[in-house]
Parts: sequence; structure tokens; C-alpha cells
Amino acid sequence: MPVSPIKMADAIRVLSMEAVHKAKSGHQGMPMGMADVATVLFGKFLKFDASKPDWADRDRFVLSAGHGSMLLYSLLHLTGYKAVTMKEIENFRQWGSLTPGHPEVHHTPGVETTTGPLGQGLATSVGMAMAEAHLAAVYGKDLVDHRTWVIAGDGCLMEGVSHEAISLAGRLKLSKLTVLFDDNNTTIDGVATIAETGDQVARFKAAGWAVKVVDGHDHGKIAAALRWATKQDRPTMIACKTLISKGAGPKEGDPHSHGYTLFDSEIVAARAAMGWDAAPFTVPDDIAKAWKSVGRRGARVRKGWEAAVAASDKGAEFTRAVVKGQLPADAFAKLEAHIASAVENKPVNATRVHSGSALDQLIPAIPEMIGGSADLTGSNNTLVKGMGAYDAPDYAGRYVHYGVREFGMAAAMNGMALHGGVIPYSGTFLAFADYSRAAIRLGALMQAKVIHVMTHDSIGLGEDGPTHQPVEQVASLRAIPNLLVFRPADAVEAAEAWQVALQQNTTPSVMCLSRQKTPHVRTSASENLVAKGAYELIAADGEAAVTIFATGTEVGLAVAAREILQSQGKPTRVVSVPCWELFDQQPAAYRKAVIGDAPVRVAVEAGIRQGWERFIGEDGKFVGMTGFGASAPFERLYKEFGITAEAVAQAAAE
Amino acid sequence: MPVSPIKMADAIRVLSMEAVHKAKSGHQGMPMGMADVATVLFGKFLKFDASKPDWADRDRFVLSAGHGSMLLYSLLHLTGYKAVTMKEIENFRQWGSLTPGHPEVHHTPGVETTTGPLGQGLATSVGMAMAEAHLAAVYGKDLVDHRTWVIAGDGCLMEGVSHEAISLAGRLKLSKLTVLFDDNNTTIDGVATIAETGDQVARFKAAGWAVKVVDGHDHGKIAAALRWATKQDRPTMIACKTLISKGAGPKEGDPHSHGYTLFDSEIVAARAAMGWDAAPFTVPDDIAKAWKSVGRRGARVRKGWEAAVAASDKGAEFTRAVVKGQLPADAFAKLEAHIASAVENKPVNATRVHSGSALDQLIPAIPEMIGGSADLTGSNNTLVKGMGAYDAPDYAGRYVHYGVREFGMAAAMNGMALHGGVIPYSGTFLAFADYSRAAIRLGALMQAKVIHVMTHDSIGLGEDGPTHQPVEQVASLRAIPNLLVFRPADAVEAAEAWQVALQQNTTPSVMCLSRQKTPHVRTSASENLVAKGAYELIAADGEAAVTIFATGTEVGLAVAAREILQSQGKPTRVVSVPCWELFDQQPAAYRKAVIGDAPVRVAVEAGIRQGWERFIGEDGKFVGMTGFGASAPFERLYKEFGITAEAVAQAAAE
Repeated sequence: MPVSPIKMADAIRVLSMEAVHKAKSGHQGMPMGMADVATVLFGKFLKFDASKPDWADRDRFVLSAGHGSMLLYSLLHLTGYKAVTMKEIENFRQWGSLTPGHPEVHHTPGVETTTGPLGQGLATSVGMAMAEAHLAAVYGKDLVDHRTWVIAGDGCLMEGVSHEAISLAGRLKLSKLTVLFDDNNTTIDGVATIAETGDQVARFKAAGWAVKVVDGHDHGKIAAALRWATKQDRPTMIACKTLISKGAGPKEGDPHSHGYTLFDSEIVAARAAMGWDAAPFTVPDDIAKAWKSVGRRGARVRKGWEAAVAASDKGAEFTRAVVKGQLPADAFAKLEAHIASAVENKPVNATRVHSGSALDQLIPAIPEMIGGSADLTGSNNTLVKGMGAYDAPDYAGRYVHYGVREFGMAAAMNGMALHGGVIPYSGTFLAFADYSRAAIRLGALMQAKVIHVMTHDSIGLGEDGPTHQPVEQVASLRAIPNLLVFRPADAVEAAEAWQVALQQNTTPSVMCLSRQKTPHVRTSASENLVAKGAYELIAADGEAAVTIFATGTEVGLAVAAREILQSQGKPTRVVSVPCWELFDQQPAAYRKAVIGDAPVRVAVEAGIRQGWERFIGEDGKFVGMTGFGASAPFERLYKEFGITAEAVAQAAAE
Repeated sequence: MPVSPIKMADAIRVLSMEAVHKAKSGHQGMPMGMADVATVLFGKFLKFDASKPDWADRDRFVLSAGHGSMLLYSLLHLTGYKAVTMKEIENFRQWGSLTPGHPEVHHTPGVETTTGPLGQGLATSVGMAMAEAHLAAVYGKDLVDHRTWVIAGDGCLMEGVSHEAISLAGRLKLSKLTVLFDDNNTTIDGVATIAETGDQVARFKAAGWAVKVVDGHDHGKIAAALRWATKQDRPTMIACKTLISKGAGPKEGDPHSHGYTLFDSEIVAARAAMGWDAAPFTVPDDIAKAWKSVGRRGARVRKGWEAAVAASDKGAEFTRAVVKGQLPADAFAKLEAHIASAVENKPVNATRVHSGSALDQLIPAIPEMIGGSADLTGSNNTLVKGMGAYDAPDYAGRYVHYGVREFGMAAAMNGMALHGGVIPYSGTFLAFADYSRAAIRLGALMQAKVIHVMTHDSIGLGEDGPTHQPVEQVASLRAIPNLLVFRPADAVEAAEAWQVALQQNTTPSVMCLSRQKTPHVRTSASENLVAKGAYELIAADGEAAVTIFATGTEVGLAVAAREILQSQGKPTRVVSVPCWELFDQQPAAYRKAVIGDAPVRVAVEAGIRQGWERFIGEDGKFVGMTGFGASAPFERLYKEFGITAEAVAQAAAE
């Protein structure tokens, strides 16, 4: 007799409640409530092979409501992801376990993305579906044909980023994206209606989704709804009416069981209600076997796919770009020629324009790069001719019109990078890094290879005024671990920054780029000096009395200040500091040499001082901003805020 | 013959296009497109008196699409806001003018909130409407009875925060809030459908709003729609179908005229099309007169209101709290007693609990405080018994269930503060400061008196793992200008921090508070030492060999490290640093004394090092985090990441 799917779902419920009980923290409410939906999804629909977690053509399953992590860990264990042993389940939320409080990608096999910060799993999944659609267009359905499934809760759908995600997905008609909404009317503070009375069904429809409501505990109806979802011409949302903590006896349906650890007596009552008498952290053999066979269900399809890749004339390119994630052999040939020519020709322009010129070299050479902008294409210089708009129905275009959706854009980029096969970059104004910051951080935590182009990087933005002028954004981005923050000074540094960013495999990057023109400063292209983070741009004429450290548009100003100081008989060196984080990674001797031992050290950056002491010392001089900017032409602003070559020379002289 | 309202609208159009033309930057597309709607709104509906921009019972007008600032400046000039002279219009976007690129509150009379970062004007206006509803409940309709009107564009409605704003407003049935959607199907990158095909009408309906679509150039129909809006029992959205750059001759309706400066010839053509032959920056007398009379329309009502305030038995309290925004005379009496008792009783608890205890003292004493949480009430310790839920129909409650809407919550708090009469505070986890950061920043720029309670302020959060553990958030918040970032160490510092935060009138605050218990450290309550930002908590026994700087939960750890060092014969002082920004404001001599001259300086904070050099010097020792956290019980995390008393003592010894 085949094992009842209800029993299979109960296995999830019991593991979830007992792991939370043992850890004395965590959430069993959602895993128990969504166990039936997950059982049907994994049992009959999800394309996966537990023995090959990195199979490129697997379906992606995203638990956007990441606090329900035990749902996912239960599934990974039960379907036979080897690393996720019962021991790991028992060690839920403990140091060194594969079962942290929220799912973490690259930490636990089978976890596709790190979730927990609400709404972002959903927004990330939009990027996964976007990558799939693009790669299917490029490589064909034999190689790329999979779906993205998301479980999201009330909290995810309250977050603003959910709006950006669903309206973008609706606009792009991402028909292989399905959201399973855990519609249990419960949030931490109580029943969800305490804070939300919106009609989610109508809302998704308004955004261009196909929507269905289903009893989330009726396996037959769930299956019918999932089948329906696979046949729509647009993204799909299934509102699954569930009881939180379903199966937890007296706590079933109780809003307060959301992040609640059941008492011993409640565990006993729940087990009795489910008729579950196996010892804690054991699963009866027949149920375990049924689940293991689910985990192997995709093996045949996976082998067929491997054969298809081997047979395809695009197989080698697919393996390089999608399976291995390697750059083309000649990725940087044109870029390096461009750098050499820039050293020669000394182009004077805004660094955003220099970044655009670098992209002109890179886009034809690296076909997996996918660009875009949050409605600032012309300002961000992110579009290269011939990329084509990314859009339905064929998705072969490489430029995404993200709309005014900075957060959703950054999260979608994370999803693309995690999906693999594409290298996403996109643009907005640096001031609006604050809008996308939570996704920038999550990308850093997830080691996602994405590049954030952020232009108009200081008061140099000018007339738009303080709301649009970054003052603290460079500092605050530097604060995020595992993120490279570049602020290049000219065409050479801009191109070098792109090269370094593209060479990273586990670290995202931010390019801080100017609106306004800035002088050319680099005289040599013998090696990529941005890769060192900081370097002596110009030595002192004589024994150095002063060192000036600068980034971006202020490097030219530092060079001018040096002229003044040299003329005053003060030998001065200039150090360009395009990337703090890379400088930190250099050997101590190199760092010491670059910092130097000039008795006077000055830094200049059109932003706040925070952290510059590491270059200039506790009592070093800093020329920059101490508060918000103002609205005026940029030359006037630099003068009024005292960020000038004269001010730098003056600071050095004091 | 009365002046045609079309001509009055044309005055806005001409001033807008000519100011943009003169500045050579800015946006005339929206001002010209929405000139008719604005003329009807200001002409017939908006309750205001141009001679009294700060009249407490005026309607609030919010230009959420702040790039269309010339619409607002034209209106302020034409209706007779004295400061907004024609000279200011001519100096649009110039240094020192009252007409910056985007509207700035406290800079230009008549500007209610700083807008430009899209979506936030709308979200801020929700807070204004919330404050109005509450104050009307408290003081009655004689004293408080006004509406909030918002102009929002496609960009505003694409931003995620718009979702949080409209779903919150819908849930709270804020019937005196009306959004006028400039439905011109245009964004910077081209026609809006390039990135958005959502149905805004259906979307607002799904969120519980009443919605109407209207021809945005038909004054009669606009008036009918505005009248309809005033009669609904829920918030209202009017989709105004407009042509961008209406009246700009060849550019009328052209998406590329969004942020475009008209050529001289196009100005000539536009003037011809409008039949406008007045000299540049002049308005024909009859039209100017008609507008001036609009500006005086509210004077009679305003005088009646002044009489009502004078006659009301609540008039004195209303004047204190709402008109003057002063704290009650005895605001801190209970708090100070509580501080004295804490010094005596040395309570050991989490600082979030200490914050909750401080609120227990403050909430009864300061009736204008309005609290809330983004669905983490129990964790944030933000609810004090007896506050009552803020909700329809009577809005007298003082605790807002914001739902999982961190960004919308922070923006709504800004709106409440700008409205005046209430002091908003609310809670979330510190890690999610990243979600609300753009509103925290805007609040700082706007000098809004709001208090962000941010609990679970380090790896001390424990099992939830790295997504929920702030590592860089304290540093990145410290980077924002005009923001006080508090990280109190115990019950005394927590209460002192609340006192200082409430004493600010032009600076918002963030309270970084622990999940985990931490020792009591303060031995004296003779003065509010948090107000100094940093202070010597314990002197060295002997001439100081070591100074340890610490914040929050790590102060207890610094005290323990001192014990170790003293026992090793190394006299050690401990400096508590609850607020960097306040320390910066102290006299140099005080700062020098607190930093001291011990040869060894160590800082300990369970976050990143960035900026600590200002306390410990370039080569000082820092004990803290260098990357993301992990999921485990907090004691284990502190040990694994090496943030212990022993590690601090060790660092000092090296």
C-alpha cells in the first residue's frame, strides 16, 4: 500500500515541531501549516534530484518566509540531500550546523537563496525566473526549462519590495514563476488583519498575475492548482488557505503559535492527533522510503539533460557560462586595449561616462552580462548599443528596464547571480543605494556576483539637491562586509574597476561614479592598480612632507593641491584610493609603503570622514562633507563646501 | 470678468517652463501636466492661508513627485507666500535660493515635507493623515479638521514604499487622505509601460481605497472628483489622466519632455499656443490678482479657528503640544525617579527591556507620544499598557500596528513629526534599519523629531542568524548626518537616552537595544551622562595604562576586562560611549579628557571597527566583528567571534 501523502506531510510537521522544541527557538507554525502544499509540490511537481543539488536545470524552490526554515530542512533531509542528516535536524539553530535559523545559500545544499529578511525571497525569485527565461531564449528549451516556486507569507507580501517584485514579474510576464502564498492570516503581532486588510488576490491580478485560491490542506486540489499554474501565460499566485501549526493539536490555527515553542504536553497532544508514535527525530521506514523516492524522482530527467548538453552544439558555451560560471577566455582583451588607449589619450569626462566606455568593451566580449537601470538609463550610462531590451516573449535581450524599483532590482540581480549563467549589473543614483541597501547587504552575505552601478556619487550631482546627493553613502556601503566599493578617478581606473569586479566570484561590487567631468590622472597601465585598492599615483618631488589620499573626482583635485604644495616647497605625494576593501587585502608591507611616512597626511573625498583615520591617522586632516548638501550648480557647491585644491593645500599647511 | 482658471493654470505652466529653462535643468513636464489639477485644488479645495504657512489646522499638500518642484514654487509664489518672490523663482536651483531642485521643508515656507526620493512623499503623507486623525480624536473637530492631499507620479507608485503606504492607509481607513495620481504614462526612460503595466486603479481598490479616474485637464470634472473625495469613508485616489508638458506646444505629451529643458524656439511656440505674451517672469495683473485672492481664501476660516482655540478648554494643552511642540512641564519627573531607582537597584536585563521600562514612565507623562512596531511588538518592548490600539474609527489610541512595513513606518513617523502635535516612535530589529534607511535619512535631513527603536542590536540576537544580526548597522547609521545613534549599556543609560532623544527638536534618534541581558554598570545618576555622548564610567586604580571604550552590551564586558587587567597590575579605565554624535558636540577639553592619555587604547563593540579610530587612534586595538554573524545561541557566538572580556584584556596586553 502506498504511503499516504498526509503521512508524508506529517513527517515534516513532526520534524519541524520537534526541532524547534529542541532548539527552544524558531518557528513551527508555517512549516506545519504549509506541509501539505510542500508535500504536493516536492512529491509531484518540483524538478530536482537530491543527489545533484547543483543541477543547472533544476527547478528553484525559494522559501521566502525564511523563518519557516524547518520546512525546507525537513524536505532536504527527507528527500535525501546527503549532507542534511538527522543529526543536522537535531542541531537546528546551533553553531556549525547546516540548519541555521534562516536558510543560507552556499551553507546548506539545496538552499537556493538566503531568506529571512521578509519579501526578499520573493524579489530574488523574480531574478531567478528572469535568468531562466533569458537562458532558455539563448540556449533553447533542451538545455534550460525549469520553473521557480516560492512560498511567501503575509509578512513577505506586506513588505514594499513585494510590490516591486510582483509588478516587475507581471510586466515581464514571467510565466514560469509561481508564488504559493501561505494565506493563514497570521503575523507575529497576532491575526494579520490587525495590520493588513488588503485583498492579495485582487492585488496580484492588478499586477498582471493569474491567481487561484485553494484549500492548502487538500492534496488533490493543491495538485490541480499547481498543474494549472504550469499552464498560464503569466506569473501565477496560489493563495493557499492554511491553518497555522496545522496538526499541532491545541495550537492548530492559533496566531500565537507563529514563533512559539510547543510545551512538552502540546507535543504529546500533537503527536496523538497525527497518530505519530515514532521516537523523536526518527521517521517510520515506509514514510522515509516514500520521501527518498521523491528525492530520486528527477534523476532520469537529469541524466537526459546531461546527454542533451553533451549533444548540443551550444554545450561547451553553456558549460562555461552556466554550469561553471567562468568568463570567456578573451573577456578582457578589448578592455585592456581600451585602458592602454586611455593612458595615451587622457580622456576627460565624468566617470559614469568612462564606465559606459568600459561597458562598450565588455558587453560584446561577455555575453552573459545583463544590464539595466531603475529608470535612469541615460544618466547611469548602463546601456550599450545592441544589447536589446529584455522583454517577453523571447527574453533574449540583455537590457532590463527595471522601472523605479531600486530594491526589487537589486534583489532580482541577486536572484540572477544565484541562478547562474548570467552576470547582472544595473544602475541607479548612489543616493538611492539607501533604497536597495537591504538587497545589497543580502547579496554580500550570499556572495552573489552582481555589480551595482551608482552614479551621481556626491554633491557633484548639483542642482537636484540634498535628497539626491550622497554624503554618507560611500562610507555606509564600505561598512557592509564582503562588498567591494569602487570610486574610480578616471577612464583607466573605471575600466580597471570593472575588470576587478568581473573577476570576483564571491563578492558583489558597487561602482560609485560621478555625474560631473573630472581630469584624467593615470599615467601608466602596466598593471591593474585598482586591484590593489590604493596606490601612489604621483610621488613627491623630494622627500615627502605631505601625502594626500583621494578617491574618484577628488583625485584630480589632490593632484592640483600637490602642485600648489610643491610650489610652496612642500614635496607632496598623491595616493589614489579606489577601493578600501582591496587595499585591506594587500600585504602589510605594501600597505605601509602606500600610507608612507610623510609627516602630514590629508584625505579628500566629497563625503563624510568616517573611517578615513585608517589612512590619515587620528589627527589627520580631512577635506570633505560634514552634513547634507544643497541645490546649486556643482562648481558652486564644491566651493561653498570648501572642497577645493586650495582647501586641501591649506589643510596640509596648517 | 473673472479670470479663466485655465489662464491661472497657464501661469503655473509658464513660470515652470521658464524657470527650468533659465536654470538649464529641472522638470517642467509634470508641473505643466498637473497645472490644471493643482489650480482646482488650490483654487477651490485646499484649506490654507498664504499669510500663515504654519497654521496648525491647514490642509497639508504634499508633492510626492518632488522633481516637479516648480509646480509647488509657482503655487507658493502666485498665492502670495511672501518669501517666495519672483526673484526666488528666477533663482530656481541656485545656491541660497528658496527654490532648490526638490522641495525642502523648513527651507521654503509652504513646503510641508522634503520630497524627491520617490514614493516617500506619499508614505510621509500617510503619517500626516494619521496625526490629523489622532489629534482630531483627542482635541475635537473644532481644533483639528483638515485633509492631506498628495500628488504622486508613476515613479512614486512603482516604489515599494508606495505599497506599504497605501496598504497601511487602507487598513486604517484614513478618509481624509487623497492621492492625485499624475497618470501620464511617462517615466524618465520613456513611456511608463516600458516598465509598468499594472492597473493602479485596481491596485488601490485592493488596498481598500476609493478610486476615481478623471480627465486631468477638465476643471469641472476635477472639481467634482475632489468633492467626491471629501465624502468617502476611506482614503481616495484620483487617477488624473494628463498630458505631460501640457501647453508646451510641440513637446506636449512627449515622454522625452519629462526632464527636458525646452529650447528657446519651443518656449516661443508654447507661449504662442497658450496665448501668453507677458514678459518672462511676470504674470499679468488680473491673473496675479486672482491667484492672490486664492491665497487669502482661508484667512477667515483661520481666524475662526484661532478663536476656537482661544475658547476651548483644551486650548492651552493644544497650544503646548500641537502649536508650539513643547514637552509637558513634568515630562521627565517619573523618568528621573526611575533612573535614581535603577542606580540603587542595579536591574540586570536586556536593554530593550530597560527601554520598555523607560517608556513605562514616559508614556503617561507625555500624551503626545505615539508608539508602534513593524510586527515585533513583543520583541521591541514598545507597547506600554493602556496606550490603546491606534485604529479606525476613533483614532484616539496611541499604539500603531504598522505591520511588516519598516520603510512605510519610518516614513509615516516623519509625516507625523512634520505634521506636529505628536512625537512618534516605533520599533523593528536593528538589522532591518536597512529596509527603512531611506526614510531614516530623509527624517534626518528634514529634522524630524522621531525615535527609531531598534532591538536585537548585534550577534547577541543569537539563533536567527546572520540575516537578522546587525554587524555594520550601527556604523552605517552613525554615518547619517543629523542623527543621534544611541547604544545604551544598562537601565540608566537607556532611560537617559530616551530623555535626550525627547529633548531634541531638530534631530531624530535611533535606539540600538539588545535582545540579551547585560550587567548593570552605572553607579551615579547625578547628571545625564548619555547627553555627553561618552564619559569615564570607571577610573583606573592608579595611573591609567589602558583605556577601554565600549558601547551597549559590551560595556559590561569592558568592566570585566578591566578587572582582569587591574589584577595584572595594569591600571585601566573604562569609557562608556553611548552616542558618538553627542560626544562630537562636547568641548575639545572634555573630549580630550575622556579619550585620556593611557598608552594603550582598546575599543570593544559587537560590530565593525569603522570609525573607532577616532577613539583608539590609528593603531588602537579593536575587539568586534569583521564579517557577518552566524546562527547559534548568543553566548556561543560571542565566544566564537572572540568578543569576550579575556579577548579585550588580551588585546590590551599585546
